[in-house]
Amino acid sequence: PLLAKHDERSVVFADLSQEEYLQVQTYMRQQKGLEIRTKQTTKPSENFLFLVDLCLPKKADVLAFLDGKGPAPERQATVVVFHGSTGFIKEYVVGPLPNPTHHRDVTQEKYRMQLPMTKRPVTVGEYALMFDFFEREVFSKLEKVMRESFGVGPNRKLNAFEQMPRGVRSGDRQTWVSFFRDMSGMYIHPVGFEVLLNHQSLNASRWTVERLLYNGHYFDSVEELKRAYEEGRVTKILYKQSPDYGSLKPKPGLQRQVGPQQFSAEGKRFSVRNNHVVYLDWSFAFGLSALTGMRAFDVRFRGERVIYELSVQEAMSVYGSVTPGMVVTKFLDSSIGIGRFAHELVRGVDCPYDATYVDSVRYIDTPKPVRFRNSICVFEHNMGQPLRRHFADFFHHSYGGMANSALVFRTITAIGNYDYMWDFIFYQSGSVEAKVHATGYISSSYMVRGSLKHGHQVAENVLGNIHTHFINFKVDLDVSGVKNVFQTKDMEFVNVSLPWIPDHFAMIPQLVEKQLKTEKEAALRYDTKTPRYLHIASNATNSWGHQRSYRLQVFSFAGDHLPESQAEEKSMSWARYKVAITKHKDQEQTSSSLYSQNDMWSPAVDFSTFIEDNENIENEDLVAWVTTGFLHIPHSEDIPNTVTVGNGGGVLLRPHNYFNQDPSIHSVDAVYFDPG
Amino acid sequence: PLLAKHDERSVVFADLSQEEYLQVQTYMRQQKGLEIRTKQTTKPSENFLFLVDLCLPKKADVLAFLDGKGPAPERQATVVVFHGSTGFIKEYVVGPLPNPTHHRDVTQEKYRMQLPMTKRPVTVGEYALMFDFFEREVFSKLEKVMRESFGVGPNRKLNAFEQMPRGVRSGDRQTWVSFFRDMSGMYIHPVGFEVLLNHQSLNASRWTVERLLYNGHYFDSVEELKRAYEEGRVTKILYKQSPDYGSLKPKPGLQRQVGPQQFSAEGKRFSVRNNHVVYLDWSFAFGLSALTGMRAFDVRFRGERVIYELSVQEAMSVYGSVTPGMVVTKFLDSSIGIGRFAHELVRGVDCPYDATYVDSVRYIDTPKPVRFRNSICVFEHNMGQPLRRHFADFFHHSYGGMANSALVFRTITAIGNYDYMWDFIFYQSGSVEAKVHATGYISSSYMVRGSLKHGHQVAENVLGNIHTHFINFKVDLDVSGVKNVFQTKDMEFVNVSLPWIPDHFAMIPQLVEKQLKTEKEAALRYDTKTPRYLHIASNATNSWGHQRSYRLQVFSFAGDHLPESQAEEKSMSWARYKVAITKHKDQEQTSSSLYSQNDMWSPAVDFSTFIEDNENIENEDLVAWVTTGFLHIPHSEDIPNTVTVGNGGGVLLRPHNYFNQDPSIHSVDAVYFDPG
Ligand SMILES: [Ca+2]
Ligand SMILES: [Ca+2]
Ligand SMILES: [Ca+2]
Ligand SMILES: [Ca+2]
Ligand SMILES: [Cu+2]
Ligand SMILES: [Cu+2]
Repeated sequence: PLLAKHDERSVVFADLSQEEYLQVQTYMRQQKGLEIRTKQTTKPSENFLFLVDLCLPKKADVLAFLDGKGPAPERQATVVVFHGSTGFIKEYVVGPLPNPTHHRDVTQEKYRMQLPMTKRPVTVGEYALMFDFFEREVFSKLEKVMRESFGVGPNRKLNAFEQMPRGVRSGDRQTWVSFFRDMSGMYIHPVGFEVLLNHQSLNASRWTVERLLYNGHYFDSVEELKRAYEEGRVTKILYKQSPDYGSLKPKPGLQRQVGPQQFSAEGKRFSVRNNHVVYLDWSFAFGLSALTGMRAFDVRFRGERVIYELSVQEAMSVYGSVTPGMVVTKFLDSSIGIGRFAHELVRGVDCPYDATYVDSVRYIDTPKPVRFRNSICVFEHNMGQPLRRHFADFFHHSYGGMANSALVFRTITAIGNYDYMWDFIFYQSGSVEAKVHATGYISSSYMVRGSLKHGHQVAENVLGNIHTHFINFKVDLDVSGVKNVFQTKDMEFVNVSLPWIPDHFAMIPQLVEKQLKTEKEAALRYDTKTPRYLHIASNATNSWGHQRSYRLQVFSFAGDHLPESQAEEKSMSWARYKVAITKHKDQEQTSSSLYSQNDMWSPAVDFSTFIEDNENIENEDLVAWVTTGFLHIPHSEDIPNTVTVGNGGGVLLRPHNYFNQDPSIHSVDAVYFDPG
Repeated sequence: PLLAKHDERSVVFADLSQEEYLQVQTYMRQQKGLEIRTKQTTKPSENFLFLVDLCLPKKADVLAFLDGKGPAPERQATVVVFHGSTGFIKEYVVGPLPNPTHHRDVTQEKYRMQLPMTKRPVTVGEYALMFDFFEREVFSKLEKVMRESFGVGPNRKLNAFEQMPRGVRSGDRQTWVSFFRDMSGMYIHPVGFEVLLNHQSLNASRWTVERLLYNGHYFDSVEELKRAYEEGRVTKILYKQSPDYGSLKPKPGLQRQVGPQQFSAEGKRFSVRNNHVVYLDWSFAFGLSALTGMRAFDVRFRGERVIYELSVQEAMSVYGSVTPGMVVTKFLDSSIGIGRFAHELVRGVDCPYDATYVDSVRYIDTPKPVRFRNSICVFEHNMGQPLRRHFADFFHHSYGGMANSALVFRTITAIGNYDYMWDFIFYQSGSVEAKVHATGYISSSYMVRGSLKHGHQVAENVLGNIHTHFINFKVDLDVSGVKNVFQTKDMEFVNVSLPWIPDHFAMIPQLVEKQLKTEKEAALRYDTKTPRYLHIASNATNSWGHQRSYRLQVFSFAGDHLPESQAEEKSMSWARYKVAITKHKDQEQTSSSLYSQNDMWSPAVDFSTFIEDNENIENEDLVAWVTTGFLHIPHSEDIPNTVTVGNGGGVLLRPHNYFNQDPSIHSVDAVYFDPG
C-alpha cells in the first residue's frame, strides 16, 4: 500500500557521505595558504579543521530541481576552521562535490561579524589540555586535600563537568569546572569542588586557575585552598564511599517476563532508500546535521508538498544554583552539537526491535569522518488507540473506525548528562508531529547553605538544580505552494438576542479569525495570551471556499524565559516566542549557531533580528519557529534518570481545511461493519 | 512479575451484578405505596424506575474495611424514580444487598432541593412519544413540504437530533429538535428544518409546537409554515440526493496489508479478577457508573494507596450557531449518561486484539439490567519509546534504559454524535494518567445567512459549528494517608550578585513554593496564571526531608468557559477551574448531576458551592477536580469523523519526592550493558 514513491532527487538534502567528507578534507588540506591540520591534538594556536557538514542549497534552486524546472543544485560542504594562527574562526563553502575546486570564506556574509577564537566550542584537543592542566596545576598540588576529601589516588580520580557560558562578557573564556565522583551517573555525584579555569589564551601554558570552590568556600588560588585546608580554616569534606544510586543496572532476582512487542505480520508498510522515506501516502527526505540534529525536508502527502523543512534548531537550559558551577549555567546544545551525539539506538528499548535502522556519518572534531551505526530509526507504531471511530446506536447500528498506526522517525542524542529523544511522527490523518522528550541524568550540585532555594535534595549532599528546558523547531510549511499567510482563529462570546425570543439575550461563541500582517505582529510571546488556533494558510481554497491551511498546535510546559535584561538572552531570543513567523530567507537558516554558547553576549545568530526588520508576511514564503519546553524542578524520582513520561513537548501540524475530508478515510486500515 | 496481589475487598467498589439489579428492582416494585413501573413505555404521568446504580459507601467506612480495621460496609443501591404521579423525582438508597429490606428517600439530603419532573432526562418512553408527536403533528401535516424539500415519503424519513438545554429558564421543557437525513453519519446531514417542541406537560396530549424553522425562516405554527410554503412566501429547499460523505466504509480497491500489532510473547503481565486489576507493582479496583462513566478506586503502588478515587465526572460542550438548534446548545453528558454508552469495544481498533475485555451491566432507562459485553478493555501497551535511558559517552561507556510499557484501562462512550475515548494509564515510573480523546461525528447545522460567524462549512449547505469540549475528572489522591496539603511550586528569576564577582549581578532561577490554605485560594481559574507545579502533598517526608507528593500535570487546550453572567453557568461551574481543591465530603461525590442538563438554571449540583464555604485545606483529606478540554473549530477534515490525534486532554499524576528514587529501577524491563 505504498502510495508514495521514492524520489532520487532527495539527495539534495542528503548528508555528506564518508567519501564526500574525505574529498572535502583532502581539498582543504591541500590549500597551502591555510595550513589546516586535522589531528585532534592540534593546538589551539594552530589551524584546525573542526567541522565538515552539508551546505544546504538555496531553497529556490532546490524547489526548481524538485519540481523538474531546474538543474540539480551544486553539491557543497560547509567547512569550519579554527584559525588559531590568526585568532579567528572561518566558515567556508567548498564545492562542487565530489571534486571540489573552490572554497569561499562566507563568515562575514553569514554572520555579519568576525568570529574570534573565543567564540569556538571546546574541542577534544582543548579538553585534553584542560585535563592535563587540572592534573598538573590542581590535583597534584592538592594531593592531600583531594585524597582526604574525595578519595583521589592512583586508582581513583574525579571527573569534570564544565559549565557554560564561560564568563560574563564577550571575549571571556573562563570555565567553572565541577568535579564528580568517577561512578556511573557521575552527574549526580558532585563532590563539592569546583575550579574556575581561565583558558582564554591560545597558548595553554598561559592558562590560569582564577578561583576555587571547596565545600562552599571560595579561594583565589590552589595555594590559598591548600593553606586554609592545612591550617584547618575550612570545614573539611571527609571522603566516604557513596552508594551507587546512579547505576542503571537491573536489580538482581527479578523474575523475567517480557512485555508486549510489536510485529508487522505482513511486512513493513514503509520503505527507506538513501535519505528518503515513503510510508503509505507520505514521503520525505531526511538528514542529520551534526550541529542542529534531525531534520526532514520535502514532506509530501499524496505527492503534494506540505513541509519544506522540519528541523530541530536548539535545545537550551537555564539553571539556578548558589554554587558557581551552575549559578550562571545556560546550555545551548547546538553549539556543542545535537546531531553529533546521535549514537547507536538500542533495539527494543530506544526503538522497537523490528524498526529500520539507518547509519549516519559525521565529521565534527575528529581526524576523519565517523560512521554512527543505527543512529536513526524508522518504524511504524500502533498507538494502541483508534485514530477515529464511531459506534452508531441510534437509528442506524453500525461501527466504523481504524487503528492509529503512524510512522515514527527518531534519533536520540545523549549530550553529556541528558538524553533528548526526538520524534517526527507522520499520521494517516495528514498530521505531522515533532516531539521531544528528555531523559538521562539531571545536572546536580553539591549541597551548601542556600542550595535549597534552587531545587530539591535528591541524594546525600546532592541538590537537583531547578532549570528550564526550551527547544526550538523550525517549521517551514509550504501550504499549496510557498506563498502563504499567517492566520489565527479563536472563539469569543458575543451577546446576542435569540431569534425566537428576541428579548432574551445569551452569550454565544463566535469564530474570530485574523490574518497577521508583519513579522512583529506574528511573533507570539510566551508571556502573552496567544490565539488558540495558529495557521499557515494559502489563498487557495478547499471545496467550501475556506483557505487551505495547516494548524500549529504547540504542546509545552515551558518555564519562564531568561529576562531580556540579561546580556546572554540575545543568544536565545527565539525562546521568547511560542511561535514566531518570519519571511523565509536562505541566510536565516538556523535560529542559533555553533558560536552562540561561547559568546552569548555577542551571539553569531540573534534570532530576534530575523523579526526586527518587521517584514510583511502576507503571501510570502513563511517559516514558523516554534518553541516548546518544560520547567524542571528535580525531585527524588529523577534518580537515577529522568523519565520521559510528562517531560517533553512538541508541535502538531494538522491539516485544517486543507483536504476536503479526513484523508484517513482512504486508509487500508479502515474497518466497517453493521448488523447486516 | 505480578508484585501486587488481588484483593477481594475491592468488591466494595464493584458495580451491581445482574442479580443485584434484579433484587433491587423486585424490591422497589414490591413497595405498594410507590406504584413503580419498569416498562420503557411507562407514561410520564406514571412512576418510572429510571436508574439503579451502586451507592458508594462512605469513604471512612471503606478505608476502615480495606485497611482491616472495620467490617464490610453495607452494600446498597441508588435508585432513581420519576414519580410522574406526584410530579417529582426521588432518589432512594436501597439496602442491604442481596436482600433489600429498607429504602430511604435521600433526595433532600443529597441535593437540598426538590426535583420537579422537568429536571428529568428524556427517557426512551418520552422519545417515543416525541417521535409520535412529530409524525402526527408535523410530518403528516406538512407532507408536501417534507416531500419536496427533504424527500420524505413512505421509504424515506428524517431523523431527529435534539438540542439542550430545553428552554431558557427553570421549569422550561421546550426542545429544539433538528432534522437530519436518514443516512449514516446523520449528524453531518442537517436539512434546514427545526422544530421547537414544548413537552413540559406530563400529559403528552398537551404538547405543542411552539415554533418552526425552515431554511432560516421562523414560523409560529405548522399551519403558518404550510401556508407560507404554498403561497411561495418562503425560499424553498429543493430535495436532491446528497453524497454519502458521512460513510465510514473503507474505499474499494485498496491493497490490504495489516499494520503493526502487539503481542505478548510470554503472556500478560497483568491480571483482572472481578473488578480488580493487578499489573506489576500496581493494583486498583474499578467500576463504570452509568452516569459518570469510568472510575478507579484504591489505586496502590507496591501496596501503598496513592489514589482513593480517580473518576470521570462530566463532559460538557457549548456550541455557537445562528440557528436555534444550536445557538443555546450546552451539553452535559453525565445527565444523559456517560457510562451508559460504554458499548462493546472493537478488537484491533478500539483496543489491541489481545487486550482483556470485561463486560459491564447497567440498569438505566430499561425494563431490566443490560449486559454490555466487552465494554471495558485492559491491556499493556508498549509506547514505542524508552521510559528512561542514558548512553554514557564520556569517561564511562555504558547504556541503561527500559522500554515504556504501561497498563491502559479504557472505555469508549458513544454519546450520540461523539465518541469519547477514556484512558487511565499506569506507568512503571509510578505515574497515573487520565486521558480523554474525542472522535465520532461533529454536530452540524444547515447553512443560513450568518452561519459562518460560528464555524466553517464542511459539506454542501453544512456548517460545522464552533464548540468547546470541557471534561472534568475527580482525583482523590491520598498521599501517605488522607491528611494532605495542597502545594504549588514554580520558578522565579531573582537578581543576585555572583559570589566570585560580587559586582556582577545576574537573574537566577529560584524555586518558589507555596502551601495554599483554603478552598478559595486553591480554586485555580483557567483565566488566570496558575503555578506550573501543583501538588497534593503529605507532611510525611522522603529520605531527604522533602514532603512526599504527587504532582498534577494538566494537558489542556480548553477554549473560553461560558461567562458566569449566564444563568446556565451554575450547572457547569467546575469548568471555571483548571484545578480546584476541596476538602473531601461523601456528600460531594460528583461535580455534576443527572438533573443538571434539564434544569441548568437551578442545577441539582453546583460545583462552586463546594468551594463557597471556603474550608481550610491544610492537613485534610483533599480532592482535586481537574478540568481539561479543547476548543473545536470544525474543518473539512472533521468529515466524516473527528480524529483523536490532537483532540484530547488529560491529567498526569506524577510522584514528586514520593519515592526515594524512580521506582522503575526495579522493573524487569530494565536493560544495561557496557563494553565489558
Ligand atoms: Ca525578517
Ligand atoms: Ca514556507
Ligand atoms: Ca468545601
Ligand atoms: Ca484525598
Ligand atoms: Cu531537566
Ligand atoms: Cu468537537
